[in-house]
Amino acid sequence: MFQEQTILRIPGPTPVPPQVERAMARPMIGHRGGEFSALFAQAAQRLKYVFQTEHDVYILAGSGTGGLEAAVANTVQTGDTVLVCTAGNFGDRFTKICKSYGANVLTVDAPWGEAIDPLQVAIALADHPEIKVVFATHCETSTGVLHDIQGIAAQVNKTDALLVVDAVSSLGAAELPMDAWGLDIVVTGSQKALMLPPGLCFVGVSPKAWNIIEKNEAPRFYFDLRSYRKQLAANTTPYTASVSLVFGLAEVLNLIESEGLPSIFARHLQMQAMTRAAIKALGLPLFTEDSISSPTVTSIGSNGFDVEAVRKFLKKDFNIAVAGGQGHLKGEIFRIGHMGFATPIDMLQVLSALEIALIKSGANVQLGNGVRAAQIAYLQTQEVTTHA
Amino acid sequence: MFQEQTILRIPGPTPVPPQVERAMARPMIGHRGGEFSALFAQAAQRLKYVFQTEHDVYILAGSGTGGLEAAVANTVQTGDTVLVCTAGNFGDRFTKICKSYGANVLTVDAPWGEAIDPLQVAIALADHPEIKVVFATHCETSTGVLHDIQGIAAQVNKTDALLVVDAVSSLGAAELPMDAWGLDIVVTGSQKALMLPPGLCFVGVSPKAWNIIEKNEAPRFYFDLRSYRKQLAANTTPYTASVSLVFGLAEVLNLIESEGLPSIFARHLQMQAMTRAAIKALGLPLFTEDSISSPTVTSIGSNGFDVEAVRKFLKKDFNIAVAGGQGHLKGEIFRIGHMGFATPIDMLQVLSALEIALIKSGANVQLGNGVRAAQIAYLQTQEVTTHA
Repeated sequence: MFQEQTILRIPGPTPVPPQVERAMARPMIGHRGGEFSALFAQAAQRLKYVFQTEHDVYILAGSGTGGLEAAVANTVQTGDTVLVCTAGNFGDRFTKICKSYGANVLTVDAPWGEAIDPLQVAIALADHPEIKVVFATHCETSTGVLHDIQGIAAQVNKTDALLVVDAVSSLGAAELPMDAWGLDIVVTGSQKALMLPPGLCFVGVSPKAWNIIEKNEAPRFYFDLRSYRKQLAANTTPYTASVSLVFGLAEVLNLIESEGLPSIFARHLQMQAMTRAAIKALGLPLFTEDSISSPTVTSIGSNGFDVEAVRKFLKKDFNIAVAGGQGHLKGEIFRIGHMGFATPIDMLQVLSALEIALIKSGANVQLGNGVRAAQIAYLQTQEVTTHA
Repeated sequence: MFQEQTILRIPGPTPVPPQVERAMARPMIGHRGGEFSALFAQAAQRLKYVFQTEHDVYILAGSGTGGLEAAVANTVQTGDTVLVCTAGNFGDRFTKICKSYGANVLTVDAPWGEAIDPLQVAIALADHPEIKVVFATHCETSTGVLHDIQGIAAQVNKTDALLVVDAVSSLGAAELPMDAWGLDIVVTGSQKALMLPPGLCFVGVSPKAWNIIEKNEAPRFYFDLRSYRKQLAANTTPYTASVSLVFGLAEVLNLIESEGLPSIFARHLQMQAMTRAAIKALGLPLFTEDSISSPTVTSIGSNGFDVEAVRKFLKKDFNIAVAGGQGHLKGEIFRIGHMGFATPIDMLQVLSALEIALIKSGANVQLGNGVRAAQIAYLQTQEVTTHA
């Protein structure tokens, strides 16, 4: 029953707040009219708070991958040497995009579920001074690892190389101050912590990046950031804007400004703590170490039960969607998303349902134990938040 | 944060499904046009399934109390003797309405939290053969008692008296077959099990009731059921219809027909079983015995903690609304609603949050114990549902 009401605990798309749904249901307006221009220019301006930057943030109609391609297409040309930090599916995507643009791709990597050490980046940069751009993934959605972008940036900023960060499943949920950390291009998508449906990507660009972009001769048209910069200066977009999504974006920015980034980050850390406490109390293997785990998604392994059965019971009994593993992790792990329009009560909900799904899948867990651990983590993290 | 997203676990208004919200957001149409007439006539026809009746069900713009007044105003006139069965706030409301229409009101009652015994009704009818109408409350929302309407009807149907049933917080959630049980007038509201916002009431009327209504000379206008009957025959309403709510009603009927009454009733019994199992496992006093408890609302007492503090923590921490006590029960009990657009996962959610609120209120409970009992009740009742 109530099939429409899927409870999205996947790492995107995430639930859309009702205010945002209503905003998107506004009657259509023309994307070249004054009303839309004002709304669009304000949204682009307000996105700087979310990116913690003084520089332009461009709004493109496209998925997160479109934003990643824009970063590559504007900074890399055939024969350039680039360094890709990869420890999962989305790190590998940077490699694929860079290769499709003819780059000479070097990589530093770590096994899926582990994190790149900034020292690996330092060594690669020392060994290969010809590296022009470094690509890194903040939250590796496929594993639930949150990379030390601050540490990586400290190494890259000792050189002339640019640092491009995929923050698709982290920006607006985890601390990532673009200017303070010296990040050159930051990319995110609409359907993760930004609480919108898929369809927009956002690209923040530093002056250092513009020096490269302006000289870049690689063929590009739709993703040419020069067009976006020129048109944003005129309060518009080079090509047709996704009008309804921009209606929703304005409402999302209201929500984000009203809650404030520090509270948003604390809420995500609390959801992460609750989820991890519950999984530990149930005796299930967490796929990532605490110190490198993301506040937006938690990957969980199996100690013998069928993870796909767990996912099926969650969907069938409770209409809750959690994600499976990607690539070689399919059937090995499942992933609970906790970002965007989600709060601690949502964690209690998914974890209490998870316990039932685990029992139905034959896992050896005690009902209630995970929820209790999450409840305790909630009370403890609330203490910290209050006293801090 | 996310203040708009109140999780309604009060016994009405209840959450509105998104399909219904969208249906209600349709552009306005005229209530005398052909499009609305067709929609309205179909909705009235389809409501017969929900009432389990072959007779007309009238759709009035008004709250549940408006429907109760319609039942009184059309069957009672000054000096008539009526019998009101009352064991709570809504039973008492029938007494007040009947008195305002000049009736000689006899009552059978039970302490709040207990149920009227059909034998009490039989005795009153034997002692007072002049009783013209018997008024009974199916679910007494103020206490969470579900009355034995079948048993009361069996007694009333031995006489010429009419039986009027307040099914505001039960119809569409608990078994109440109007025709099979011989009920003369059944009243419900839109904002309980019928998953709509407040603003409509629905009145089912038997031929036996019509014999009385046609002869009734009490002054009445807006609630004169004769007008509603005449206009329903012409596929319309005597006065302006609540157009958006009727848009929503059509969608609600889709949902109810799609799930089917037997499944809906089983779902509510399952939510009731989960809630009661959790409260027992936490060692809190249930305000009603299992045998007379409602599948739509559960009243819970205190063993020392401040019930108003519990409600405040639920609202502040999780934006969950549960109801307090009414009348002399204010501060003594709190009430969890579980009807309409609600499923077992919603019970796991509210119960896990309740445990935290209880701890914060200084109650002596063990975190996780209530949730575990609810999880076990879920698994057990699911077995029953599957094997039945």
